[in-house]
Amino acid sequence: MTRFFNDVVVGEAEELGSHTFTADEIKTFARAFDPQPFHLDEAAGAASHFGGLCASGWHTASMWMRLRVDSLKRQAEDARAQGRPVPKLGPSPGFRDLRWLRPVKPGDTLVFWSKIVDKRVSASRPGWGLLTHQNWADNQKGERAFEFTGTNFLEVSPGAAG
Amino acid sequence: MTRFFNDVVVGEAEELGSHTFTADEIKTFARAFDPQPFHLDEAAGAASHFGGLCASGWHTASMWMRLRVDSLKRQAEDARAQGRPVPKLGPSPGFRDLRWLRPVKPGDTLVFWSKIVDKRVSASRPGWGLLTHQNWADNQKGERAFEFTGTNFLEVSPGAAG
Repeated sequence: MTRFFNDVVVGEAEELGSHTFTADEIKTFARAFDPQPFHLDEAAGAASHFGGLCASGWHTASMWMRLRVDSLKRQAEDARAQGRPVPKLGPSPGFRDLRWLRPVKPGDTLVFWSKIVDKRVSASRPGWGLLTHQNWADNQKGERAFEFTGTNFLEVSPGAAG
Repeated sequence: MTRFFNDVVVGEAEELGSHTFTADEIKTFARAFDPQPFHLDEAAGAASHFGGLCASGWHTASMWMRLRVDSLKRQAEDARAQGRPVPKLGPSPGFRDLRWLRPVKPGDTLVFWSKIVDKRVSASRPGWGLLTHQNWADNQKGERAFEFTGTNFLEVSPGAAG
């Protein structure tokens, strides 16, 4: 998505990357932000409705953000190396329909994807468009673990009309 | 919300707590999960559309979770001290309509609230009900910075019919 808004194609999907969650990082996140027993301790997790230690849902969501930022950086570097301009990505107004579909356990590898499902020129911010993207993560068994629909402002190409 | 599902009153609002975001913790979260320049560096933030260093939206959301867990723990301790049973809080299927309405900057103090807006008996999980809660955080100027609508399973009282 180093494309400017006007060059983005609705329907395009991108693999952001993958991440293997470790017990240590699950517990580190949980100590800071979600200190519930099943996110902190294997035995407490086994006794819970999750059946084992599992990541905070906000940890999974935050990891989506990390992989998205890493992907954007790689693409910006590629564009710069090719002498192409790099569009500005604006703020996200928010998201909708976030679902945690399956627990994420130590050793699980999630592959994160993002697909553009809508684009429209911003009425409130001249020079910007608003992208809607569907995002999901599947685990190593091919099971969907996480999904949400997000929005972001993206710069319209300086050369484009409107 | 140490009440069992059947005792929860729709319309009830609860102040979960408040948190003052520091530059250090904003940067620590960003390094791990959202390494964009405006979340990592004061000068880059000043040059951005945010006008200053600001917290990742996922940091704000994760802090909501932390304050909610802390609030639930306090209430569970009170219940235990009074000899009352403590209901089990089940997993969250997900969220909708999350909005980041204003940047959260170093020194900003957010007060987080949660209000029950709907309850229904779960069709899929006998013994459980599903709560819908509106959540928001206002900064020290009284400006809304963050909001979303969440859902959670909550245990029905063992003594209740149904």
